[in-house]
Amino acid sequence: MEFDELNGFLGDRLTTSKAIRLEHSQDESWHLPKNIPDAITYPETSEEVSKIIKFASKNNIPVIPFGTGTALEGHIHALKGGITINSSKMNKIIELNNSDMDCRVQAGVTRKELNDYIRDTGLFFPVDPGANASIGGMCATRASGTTTVKYGTIREQVMGLEVVMPDGKIIKTGTRARKSAAGYDLSHLMLGSEGTLGFITEINLKLHGRPEAISAGVCTFKDLKGAIDTVIESIQVGLPLSRIELLDEVQIKAINKYKKVSHEIGPTLFVEIQGMPLSVKEQSEIFRDIAEANNILKFQWSDRSEEIEVLWSARHDAYYAALALAPGKKAFTTDICVPISNLTDCIIETKKDIEQSNIIAPIVGHVGDGNFHLIMLLDPENKKEVSEAKQLNDKLVNRALKMEGTSTGEHGIGIGKKEFLKTEQGLSVEIMSQIKKAIDPKNIMNPGKIFDIN
Amino acid sequence: MEFDELNGFLGDRLTTSKAIRLEHSQDESWHLPKNIPDAITYPETSEEVSKIIKFASKNNIPVIPFGTGTALEGHIHALKGGITINSSKMNKIIELNNSDMDCRVQAGVTRKELNDYIRDTGLFFPVDPGANASIGGMCATRASGTTTVKYGTIREQVMGLEVVMPDGKIIKTGTRARKSAAGYDLSHLMLGSEGTLGFITEINLKLHGRPEAISAGVCTFKDLKGAIDTVIESIQVGLPLSRIELLDEVQIKAINKYKKVSHEIGPTLFVEIQGMPLSVKEQSEIFRDIAEANNILKFQWSDRSEEIEVLWSARHDAYYAALALAPGKKAFTTDICVPISNLTDCIIETKKDIEQSNIIAPIVGHVGDGNFHLIMLLDPENKKEVSEAKQLNDKLVNRALKMEGTSTGEHGIGIGKKEFLKTEQGLSVEIMSQIKKAIDPKNIMNPGKIFDIN
Repeated sequence: MEFDELNGFLGDRLTTSKAIRLEHSQDESWHLPKNIPDAITYPETSEEVSKIIKFASKNNIPVIPFGTGTALEGHIHALKGGITINSSKMNKIIELNNSDMDCRVQAGVTRKELNDYIRDTGLFFPVDPGANASIGGMCATRASGTTTVKYGTIREQVMGLEVVMPDGKIIKTGTRARKSAAGYDLSHLMLGSEGTLGFITEINLKLHGRPEAISAGVCTFKDLKGAIDTVIESIQVGLPLSRIELLDEVQIKAINKYKKVSHEIGPTLFVEIQGMPLSVKEQSEIFRDIAEANNILKFQWSDRSEEIEVLWSARHDAYYAALALAPGKKAFTTDICVPISNLTDCIIETKKDIEQSNIIAPIVGHVGDGNFHLIMLLDPENKKEVSEAKQLNDKLVNRALKMEGTSTGEHGIGIGKKEFLKTEQGLSVEIMSQIKKAIDPKNIMNPGKIFDIN
Repeated sequence: MEFDELNGFLGDRLTTSKAIRLEHSQDESWHLPKNIPDAITYPETSEEVSKIIKFASKNNIPVIPFGTGTALEGHIHALKGGITINSSKMNKIIELNNSDMDCRVQAGVTRKELNDYIRDTGLFFPVDPGANASIGGMCATRASGTTTVKYGTIREQVMGLEVVMPDGKIIKTGTRARKSAAGYDLSHLMLGSEGTLGFITEINLKLHGRPEAISAGVCTFKDLKGAIDTVIESIQVGLPLSRIELLDEVQIKAINKYKKVSHEIGPTLFVEIQGMPLSVKEQSEIFRDIAEANNILKFQWSDRSEEIEVLWSARHDAYYAALALAPGKKAFTTDICVPISNLTDCIIETKKDIEQSNIIAPIVGHVGDGNFHLIMLLDPENKKEVSEAKQLNDKLVNRALKMEGTSTGEHGIGIGKKEFLKTEQGLSVEIMSQIKKAIDPKNIMNPGKIFDIN
């Protein structure tokens, strides 16, 4: 394929190097690439993205948006080759409005870059999916993570977008007003569309005031039920927890080994409460009362930030600690989310399935939202392991759907969950396809993701 | 027009009575109806709505969704005649899940009906647009209101919808999980689509725990700047106010007259803080400190619910008190929303415009969101008055757009703001039209609202 036209304005920010194309062919998941992109581009501006997409549209070439490559369902796989647009050079923070507590960033800015940049303003950006993802990627996959229980997902943070559409036109959605009833909510249509409707180039984000006080702890329970019931009861009495994470005993053992620490073994909650000093104190005490009524084994609590950091570091490395349980293997990560009243049953039944299988699968979850992950360790080339993991996942997703939940709380559909989407959303998927066809009639934007277009 | 086919299953829940058609021809705004619907239908189930829409589709008849008729931009006007679907008999609360704090309702349930129904559960539904609107109507117009500053708009409450599409197919969006990354966010596309993409029949809503403690007050300031700066500073320090409303001195005078009370005359904030007892106390004190540093004249505060009700009743009747200033006139209500740092300038400049005009226009606003309304009183038949009000509104909207705000914070576009939408959203409106044409190729769903389809 000839890319001279793009080379003209991108120069060495376009490459067809095999090594770099290979690097862009697979995300962090177990999904093996069936193809690799034909070229990788590194635009710096929305206008450059527009030119690339116009070129692709004219030549019917697929376009694959790429943030940090940390997706978990094959979102950035170049199923039919094409041009990958890597947003890493779109890393400018365009505008910071302290007094409105908002900012405008280019898509390639990562969440840690943003938080570093605004550290001294007393503001922060709360969404934390674990990986240091790009804001654009987080928008494209409707990401969330540990702080969702208090601050919501990325969906609740976005006030407006700039998007390059499949014909290369640049549109702006939303405004800087905190709310608006002006026409269709295109921002929210784009969030979670996984690059299939356009390339998000700029994002107008809400920021939040850094809390005056933080209190956090690690609580080990005698059994899973005690841990999960503590979560459910805390949510039900309206405790504004800023994080509440569950790690099962398999995950705790993995962390002890990986970090050379000695956490009490058992289902464990990592909890954090933020706010004004008296409120935090009041809420921490209520949480403790609830936990103590639910078979707690050990309660470690602190309101000193250095101690909190040490306590919580175990949680932050959970994914890598899990991977270290079986060196060389990849992670097949499940992502169901259910109404919280079904969470205890859902996790306990799932634990039984895991115990009856040959798969090592620690559990870690954003349980305040009803969302949890199995990190199933496998060799993607080993058909037997893959098949067993798929069976476990199928069973888990069907259980979640029966419990009125979703197949994916935060990772998205990608190439991995297209069949589940049909079961879950039924006729709605037809409407999604109609929208896709209307906006991207040539099907050049990230084809083969979310659904297949006939 | 012959409606025998509908009469077959609707019986007397279909009417062509002139009086009833007239009642359905105009909302609560100043917009005069140019036409009236040909028939009014009162379905009880989604299947009946589907049959009505299939009939309309077959015969190319417009369909106009109708909730309680309290829209403010002509949303329910039958511009080309057609069948109005009145949702008042779709008033069942289908499901209430106390422990998940959610419910599923039919579209015709009003917010007060819902709150009455769940009163004993310790839960409540927070969105309060003033009118006792139907939940379906609130969804269709992306409504918000006094509690948005804490709880968000209707957008943040909806987890899933059932919608009858323009071809009569019934789709379900979302699940009962608190979050999901499963495909395009059709729920949010439908919210605010003003009935142009389908008829919302059922809504899956989040509910919230009734707060243990409430504290509220009425604070009169020496000047507008003091009042608005108090709001801005409170938001910026992260005070989780549950309501903060501004009424200007014209509106306070109107209330004193209408309710025969004697509020101190001046720009006034109505404030409410909810939460756990200690937290509420802490936050109320911080608010008081901020207000006192901003030229406060009078501070009335209470944590007793009966007293709070008396204090706040003035706010609840603001709209009718304003109308009573000029008996027989209608209200042309503006609805801009700006970034909060621009709010002081925006309101002060607007006050000057009002003072230089002949229009009586009290100001009332959800200032915590940057959203405020002028209630411009006029006789819709009086061309001079209408023209002067339009000029005021034009100037106000252009000011808001220049300040990176929106022409409508919560009322929607309807027939009143189609031109502003183009200025505000630019090329995005083309994308909206593409979506509309793909989903409703015959343009039967609420035609002429939001934009005109060529």
